[in-house]
Amino acid sequence: MAEATGKRDHFIGVDLGGTKILAGVFSPQLRCLGKVKMSTKPERGPEGVLERVARCVNEAVDECDLQLDNIKALGIGAPGAVDPEEGRMIFAPNLKWENVPLKKVLEKQLGLPVFAENDCNACALGVYETELDPKPRSMMGIFLGTGIGGGIVLDGKPYSGFNRTAGEIGHMVLEVNGPKCGCGNKGCFEALASRTALFRRIQNAVKEGEKTVLTDMLGPELADMRSGDLRKALRRGDKLVEKVVEEAAEYTGIAVANIINLLNPEVIVLGGGVMDQLADDMLAIVIETARDYALPGTAKGIEILASKLGDDAGITGAAVLARRESK
Amino acid sequence: MAEATGKRDHFIGVDLGGTKILAGVFSPQLRCLGKVKMSTKPERGPEGVLERVARCVNEAVDECDLQLDNIKALGIGAPGAVDPEEGRMIFAPNLKWENVPLKKVLEKQLGLPVFAENDCNACALGVYETELDPKPRSMMGIFLGTGIGGGIVLDGKPYSGFNRTAGEIGHMVLEVNGPKCGCGNKGCFEALASRTALFRRIQNAVKEGEKTVLTDMLGPELADMRSGDLRKALRRGDKLVEKVVEEAAEYTGIAVANIINLLNPEVIVLGGGVMDQLADDMLAIVIETARDYALPGTAKGIEILASKLGDDAGITGAAVLARRESK
Repeated sequence: MAEATGKRDHFIGVDLGGTKILAGVFSPQLRCLGKVKMSTKPERGPEGVLERVARCVNEAVDECDLQLDNIKALGIGAPGAVDPEEGRMIFAPNLKWENVPLKKVLEKQLGLPVFAENDCNACALGVYETELDPKPRSMMGIFLGTGIGGGIVLDGKPYSGFNRTAGEIGHMVLEVNGPKCGCGNKGCFEALASRTALFRRIQNAVKEGEKTVLTDMLGPELADMRSGDLRKALRRGDKLVEKVVEEAAEYTGIAVANIINLLNPEVIVLGGGVMDQLADDMLAIVIETARDYALPGTAKGIEILASKLGDDAGITGAAVLARRESK
Repeated sequence: MAEATGKRDHFIGVDLGGTKILAGVFSPQLRCLGKVKMSTKPERGPEGVLERVARCVNEAVDECDLQLDNIKALGIGAPGAVDPEEGRMIFAPNLKWENVPLKKVLEKQLGLPVFAENDCNACALGVYETELDPKPRSMMGIFLGTGIGGGIVLDGKPYSGFNRTAGEIGHMVLEVNGPKCGCGNKGCFEALASRTALFRRIQNAVKEGEKTVLTDMLGPELADMRSGDLRKALRRGDKLVEKVVEEAAEYTGIAVANIINLLNPEVIVLGGGVMDQLADDMLAIVIETARDYALPGTAKGIEILASKLGDDAGITGAAVLARRESK
């Protein structure tokens, strides 16, 4: 796939999640040359997981007919609070990790300079660096997938706040006493507009007797439903899916308005698996709702757009980090 | 009140609001030496209002037995989007102003260097400079009064975002389809926890037959109710007021949790007239609710406290601005 130049000028971007590890190899110009996915197996603990990360990286490099010698640096986005200076994972609720020296362990295993960031910050950085031109002074990325996360970039740098946890827009309460969220609270944005929330609404509606083509496509239990299935159902004119997706877009618009009122970033980018599949159906509603809810004058000139990076936002941002920090 | 030193080393802070103008004279060490209040009379338009600001400033200076010659610079906090570089009011919905050259007009009227900021940014700056030691890298001030506003200070400077309107936490939607807000939306934080919201809840409850000592204190119409009346009612064990204040504190705690999740500032300060009167009754509930709603690990070490500046936050912050910018 890639020509081995003999030079040490490529980058690795790793997206470490609670269920999967994605490693991508990037050219000096940040073109993705190839990638490999593995399950995380968090039950094996930090050591076992980081060994899998290293294997995934080696596989990705081999996939691209390169060698570790061709890699200048590796960036990794990890799900939780990360201290980027030390490259230490402060805590990661999904992985049940505390105080894991990511950078140190991976540098030892791979013999490469390693740089770490929070996963959503990495996604936002990837969007900022590869999709926005000219560069805005401030941006927020909102990523809708199984959960909802966010990352803030101010003056070109990830903003992570006091505990390195800023950007957690998924747990912004939008509806006091709304539906229960995985975090234990009620009415979080994530409980209203994530893939999990969409699926739950559809499943509940089906249980209550509402009709949808999804049952023809996936069976009465709606097993293995994916965001792409919702897109197919929309194309077939499914009213239930239309209603549920519209509602999620409205909630997303309200969340975006809250961000406009509060942080007033120059650009707001929507990404993640849900947007990747449903941007055509959601984006216009998100923008209309956001402009409607934002205070007069506050949304003027602010761009609201969809990322095209999809699931590659994390590895792209991690590779951006590797290139930046190894300069 | 103050000794005229003959030096040009004092500062003026002006808080320009939709209903009143407050001007304060400050010593070189930012001690408030005296202040004068006037009604705004927005119906007279920008020229008429700014003439009143100048008169209010002259009165305040005279009140302190000083002269304009003793003033080094004037700062002004104004209600809306302000371009601090040009000292221009971009727009002010309450005053119905657009593009008013605050700095230019006031400098001409008073013969002093003038510096302008958004009013809530000024309040936050006042708290930051005079109440916090050591200085946090990031803070947010939340001001509960007739409405609710906020200001963000990052690395010692007001953060105002793309349209100079950041910090508008009052219009963060917390309860989709909640009570109607003055801005036209529903369920804004301001519609749930401002003085206006508290009073409306109490008035509605009284209409529905609930009992409160406030009717003994103020008559059946609850005319001219103030935050201080709520405090008095609480001291007399009033159950209705207790319930309403508790609810407002819970909503405030949820708003604070949203800020912790999203912006993760090192310090969150609660101020404004409502907190000034009711901090003893609200602060503990705000903190408990915020820590409960914030994601695990995100609130660690973050301070949540009440400002003691009360209604003087605006003039104090404006004076801070004057001192900073005239250095």
